[in-house]
Amino acid sequence: MAQGRKLRMGMVGGGPGAFIGPVHRMAAELDGRIELVAGAFSQTAEHSRAAGEAYRIDSARAYANYVEMLDAEGKRPDPIDFVAIVTPNHLHLPVALAALEAGFPVMSDKPATATYAEVLQLEKAVAKSQLPYGLTHTYAGYSMVREARSICASRRLGTIRKVAVEYLQGWLSAPLETTGQKQATWRSDPALNGPGGCIGDIGVHAFHLLEYVTALSVESLNAALRSVVPGRRLDDDCTALLRMDNGATGVLMASQIAAGELNGLRLRVYGEKGSIDWRQEDPNRLRVKWLDGPEEIRHAAGGYLSDDARVVTRLPGGHPEGYVEAFAVLYREFADALVAWHQKKPNSLPATLPGIRAAVRGMRFIDRAIESSKSGRWINF
Amino acid sequence: MAQGRKLRMGMVGGGPGAFIGPVHRMAAELDGRIELVAGAFSQTAEHSRAAGEAYRIDSARAYANYVEMLDAEGKRPDPIDFVAIVTPNHLHLPVALAALEAGFPVMSDKPATATYAEVLQLEKAVAKSQLPYGLTHTYAGYSMVREARSICASRRLGTIRKVAVEYLQGWLSAPLETTGQKQATWRSDPALNGPGGCIGDIGVHAFHLLEYVTALSVESLNAALRSVVPGRRLDDDCTALLRMDNGATGVLMASQIAAGELNGLRLRVYGEKGSIDWRQEDPNRLRVKWLDGPEEIRHAAGGYLSDDARVVTRLPGGHPEGYVEAFAVLYREFADALVAWHQKKPNSLPATLPGIRAAVRGMRFIDRAIESSKSGRWINF
Amino acid sequence: MAQGRKLRMGMVGGGPGAFIGPVHRMAAELDGRIELVAGAFSQTAEHSRAAGEAYRIDSARAYANYVEMLDAEGKRPDPIDFVAIVTPNHLHLPVALAALEAGFPVMSDKPATATYAEVLQLEKAVAKSQLPYGLTHTYAGYSMVREARSICASRRLGTIRKVAVEYLQGWLSAPLETTGQKQATWRSDPALNGPGGCIGDIGVHAFHLLEYVTALSVESLNAALRSVVPGRRLDDDCTALLRMDNGATGVLMASQIAAGELNGLRLRVYGEKGSIDWRQEDPNRLRVKWLDGPEEIRHAAGGYLSDDARVVTRLPGGHPEGYVEAFAVLYREFADALVAWHQKKPNSLPATLPGIRAAVRGMRFIDRAIESSKSGRWINF
Amino acid sequence: MAQGRKLRMGMVGGGPGAFIGPVHRMAAELDGRIELVAGAFSQTAEHSRAAGEAYRIDSARAYANYVEMLDAEGKRPDPIDFVAIVTPNHLHLPVALAALEAGFPVMSDKPATATYAEVLQLEKAVAKSQLPYGLTHTYAGYSMVREARSICASRRLGTIRKVAVEYLQGWLSAPLETTGQKQATWRSDPALNGPGGCIGDIGVHAFHLLEYVTALSVESLNAALRSVVPGRRLDDDCTALLRMDNGATGVLMASQIAAGELNGLRLRVYGEKGSIDWRQEDPNRLRVKWLDGPEEIRHAAGGYLSDDARVVTRLPGGHPEGYVEAFAVLYREFADALVAWHQKKPNSLPATLPGIRAAVRGMRFIDRAIESSKSGRWINF
Repeated sequence: MAQGRKLRMGMVGGGPGAFIGPVHRMAAELDGRIELVAGAFSQTAEHSRAAGEAYRIDSARAYANYVEMLDAEGKRPDPIDFVAIVTPNHLHLPVALAALEAGFPVMSDKPATATYAEVLQLEKAVAKSQLPYGLTHTYAGYSMVREARSICASRRLGTIRKVAVEYLQGWLSAPLETTGQKQATWRSDPALNGPGGCIGDIGVHAFHLLEYVTALSVESLNAALRSVVPGRRLDDDCTALLRMDNGATGVLMASQIAAGELNGLRLRVYGEKGSIDWRQEDPNRLRVKWLDGPEEIRHAAGGYLSDDARVVTRLPGGHPEGYVEAFAVLYREFADALVAWHQKKPNSLPATLPGIRAAVRGMRFIDRAIESSKSGRWINF
Repeated sequence: MAQGRKLRMGMVGGGPGAFIGPVHRMAAELDGRIELVAGAFSQTAEHSRAAGEAYRIDSARAYANYVEMLDAEGKRPDPIDFVAIVTPNHLHLPVALAALEAGFPVMSDKPATATYAEVLQLEKAVAKSQLPYGLTHTYAGYSMVREARSICASRRLGTIRKVAVEYLQGWLSAPLETTGQKQATWRSDPALNGPGGCIGDIGVHAFHLLEYVTALSVESLNAALRSVVPGRRLDDDCTALLRMDNGATGVLMASQIAAGELNGLRLRVYGEKGSIDWRQEDPNRLRVKWLDGPEEIRHAAGGYLSDDARVVTRLPGGHPEGYVEAFAVLYREFADALVAWHQKKPNSLPATLPGIRAAVRGMRFIDRAIESSKSGRWINF
Repeated sequence: MAQGRKLRMGMVGGGPGAFIGPVHRMAAELDGRIELVAGAFSQTAEHSRAAGEAYRIDSARAYANYVEMLDAEGKRPDPIDFVAIVTPNHLHLPVALAALEAGFPVMSDKPATATYAEVLQLEKAVAKSQLPYGLTHTYAGYSMVREARSICASRRLGTIRKVAVEYLQGWLSAPLETTGQKQATWRSDPALNGPGGCIGDIGVHAFHLLEYVTALSVESLNAALRSVVPGRRLDDDCTALLRMDNGATGVLMASQIAAGELNGLRLRVYGEKGSIDWRQEDPNRLRVKWLDGPEEIRHAAGGYLSDDARVVTRLPGGHPEGYVEAFAVLYREFADALVAWHQKKPNSLPATLPGIRAAVRGMRFIDRAIESSKSGRWINF
Repeated sequence: MAQGRKLRMGMVGGGPGAFIGPVHRMAAELDGRIELVAGAFSQTAEHSRAAGEAYRIDSARAYANYVEMLDAEGKRPDPIDFVAIVTPNHLHLPVALAALEAGFPVMSDKPATATYAEVLQLEKAVAKSQLPYGLTHTYAGYSMVREARSICASRRLGTIRKVAVEYLQGWLSAPLETTGQKQATWRSDPALNGPGGCIGDIGVHAFHLLEYVTALSVESLNAALRSVVPGRRLDDDCTALLRMDNGATGVLMASQIAAGELNGLRLRVYGEKGSIDWRQEDPNRLRVKWLDGPEEIRHAAGGYLSDDARVVTRLPGGHPEGYVEAFAVLYREFADALVAWHQKKPNSLPATLPGIRAAVRGMRFIDRAIESSKSGRWINF
């Protein structure tokens, strides 16, 4: 692959009315490493073409469906370098399998698949293909999440004893899915979404963030999932007691009926000597509290931060970076992975970029939470 | 009782090294309605006398023990009007029983007794005596807690669907009880403290605040209690999943090993249309969030607040009132109750002042949480 | 003076409708060192008596006016130990002169007098009397203001280069004085208030805080005072550019027409290496920022604080202390001063308690700001 | 111009070590409307070529200097659609004049020129060319700044009485320009920067934000500029008292020696009935305070916001947008302007996008502030 050119992205999903497709486009292109050149953006050829125009790509590369895209791109002299999957959940697996089969690396939105059984299938396909597979757990891209991860790894907090992660939204407080709102509709339909509603949409982000930052694994859990809004077919509110593999305990709370909350993801980690506290809605600050000493606020781009935190910022301190910038960090790392893979370097995926392992853990979490909630008891992970 | 004079308080406990005794004195006297005049402040006559001097009371009224105090005060022409109990937990019941028996109303620190069995005994004694009994769940005295309570009662949030209450401290992160620190020592000794460590010390505050503000009752719970610090004899970290009597669910988290936290009591209540969020460390503000509309910050003493919230402030907006002022609201309401009782008014205790019902609920909560934690399952309250 | 008894306070002012009188009573009594026993609370004997009843003092000691009070108390075997002056400004001087003349120490509300000429007269009287004179610049009593002062004194910030102090209120946004509201009425009347409206009511607090914390003195200033509300007779909005005696510059902003603000006093001090930031509406935290290193939040009662900050807290960290507690610190230090004075110790006033020097500086500031505003130019202090 | 294609940007400046060049590139491309295709990135052909490679553009379009770029691009069948100027200040005018002369619209970084005399020259050239000219006062692109502007325009606050704008940084606390740091070096050199140091670098942003949000104009001012750091050749700290054309007064504070501050731009506007408060470091929230009623926090993307605020967000509430996104709003509006201009629509520049009028006002402000500071007096704008 030429060093100097941009990597070419082909997108599946992201058509009219989509939320996350345009985010992937902005994130992928932000650092000037990648450009969107092709896509199968929607269920119909017409919608896909319209989306292609809106994205200002070559009209010949707005395909009617992903099978056509993979086939046609494979024959071009300047084919796409990878496929980004931004469809509803039930398509994540078939698209990923087809892309890997066709030899294209994959960058997928989360959750990795619709069910736990599916992710095991995906895991095998990834292993077999030896192609890079990335999973966009967006929040892992924030600089201050990287700083939190570094602090945990440094053991400055001492042994971790207690964790609390919460992800609170209010946008599904009303039965939005009965109004035809696109985002609510597919998320409330088990056939398109999979069996985990809130737990699969945002609970899995909270779970990932927890394991990503602490480097601990959930060992057992005791969960309570509910469908609060009358008529809703999937859970919209979840809480789980957790036990981690080092003996720490904790709680995970996720809700989409927390009226008044916007995108309230927050992680707190308590060690023997101090604690950290990060909030997605104030992402450029990380609070660190100590048993003996003043509370600290660490600011993105501070010269005192860990290398891991500093390399992913683009701006000086006090110039806020947000959701798209965090997302773009994952794409930047995926671009690095593609370059390394082209150069036949082994284990090309950076440790900081969520991949197939995170995919399997996440789907397992959804599965186990649903199971535990049915019994009202602790179960092993 | 003469209208014009101050009410006379006799204190049991609160001697050298005490934390909460001096707080009771400040709180009782803040509004100019009550004065501390007598006490059995410590385990020895000598310490009690020293405390009496520090409090600048008449040396004749610093008694060697509470039996002596009750006896001597009963014979004076100007006896104490009530007894304030600020001892370690194991003495709450015997002192309260003796005081009631001697005809003195009681204002007690929490938890009401050491065990659930004890509180049932206390409940009978209070009923029999027909004397005012108040319980100092301090946080119920904050103006903005009253505002939160009014908002819930007004049903402006719609049906309550979800609650989250947390009370996080870090001061027992190290085995402080092995160093002789007074506060840590008795709290870690089941014989002096009762069977609930963290759950009894601060979990019960969180529980009370939740039921006080929402007017809902916990119906069942699934709790996990732990002793995190090696060698500690009682729990120091607790989390419980909750179901309320209206079908709402929630979580209660209390910890004394949350390193870096000071006195982090926070209550969030989510209804169909909006939510409220109150934090003890920022007590003069109440956040109210709505599904449709800007987030609100209500400030203590705002002209737009409910009557219940406004009557308990003493200062104009922006002049912070704190922990002592909240505590003093309870004493002010207790003083009102004493006056009403002297005037032979029935049901003299204001609905806003925690009393024997809160005492029983609180001890039941401690008992049920311990029980649930043993089984790892949901149990009825 | 007996060691064991409480000091006796006589109050002038503080009758029905008063704001600051009851605050002085609460603050004076909070630490159990002082009790209110006498007063000339209002302009009429009847109102004074009514106030005396509300304060629950001996009816014989609710006097018709301060002359009577000073005379009668002087003849008692248990006279008052000092006089607290809480009247509108125009009475500060005559009451203080009479009290000092009669041999009573004085604790006065601010501003010390109505005019700069008056304070020079007061200064002489204090010097002549050799009696303790304290001035209640409330905000000097906050623990975290003491911490800020310690940090400046320690020179950890390096040379101070820039200061910014602001005191923003909104309660005079409408012409409240035309409605008969007591607090607004006298403050808007030059005869009762003196020539400085907002600058004298709150600007002087901001000025004092600045000099108190930094130990620098204003050397010259360039001020702009305005009467924004039509018909208002005194300034209600003030801004001043400042030069300090060490070459630092800064700005002071005070307003009572900043609609929506409550009691927004804030001080920022910038040195070569870092800065401090304190806000009265969040008084238990002090922010310290560094050129190289994380921002710090110092919390009241932290074990890491300076001695000066720690000795003035009463509660553990996370238990908020507020406006009354800060005020009470000044009364506690005044009580110490009285004891020292009884023991004939020289220079009995603690350096941390504002006294006659602060009184003179404050009145000079008001005078100079008015003068500079007239010319629109820099003038020497 | 074809509807479907992206607009082509040619950049002058933005070579190795640049801060703002890469920001312009990210901002221009974020919304998929513009792509960087050419540039004269540096002072030498070699550096320019290296930058072109880093930006991954066609090597033939990385020019040795802007004269060459304008010439070569003018002859291409696919020329650039506009020139972005991101050089040090002294080059803003010559590059802009050459671009306009060659028929290319201009998007320029601020300040518009090095001196007031220069901006008058530019004003004439823009008028003569009838080409779109945009000025990247970044902060005007934030959604919540647009909301603040709408609120002011709606007159919901009543007449504006008082304004306070501050822009505090600490990064020039040390004599960074003596170390060869690129950003500090040219900013401290009058020949490259112009006569206004801090006032020209960030004071002008604060000034613009103030006039942009309130739609008021500064009428007179009384400024104090200083060079705090020994040896520094330009001001690094500025404060100015302001009078607005409606009679409101205010203060502007800008500093680059406020140690510990990062990029602390904040605007407060006080009207008769309420006030607004916006902080760049927390850009997705706007605080609105009222004389009677709770404080409001308005969140970006709220359904209750003004149209002007809502059209410039890309993400749902709670998903932070930052500095690059705000910057990109200006580029999006500039792209709209280019399309309108191609369609020969008159007055093609949107009212929300800063242009030549803002350029002239800003340079006038710098000039007047320097002049006033010399005299220590009020002067007309």
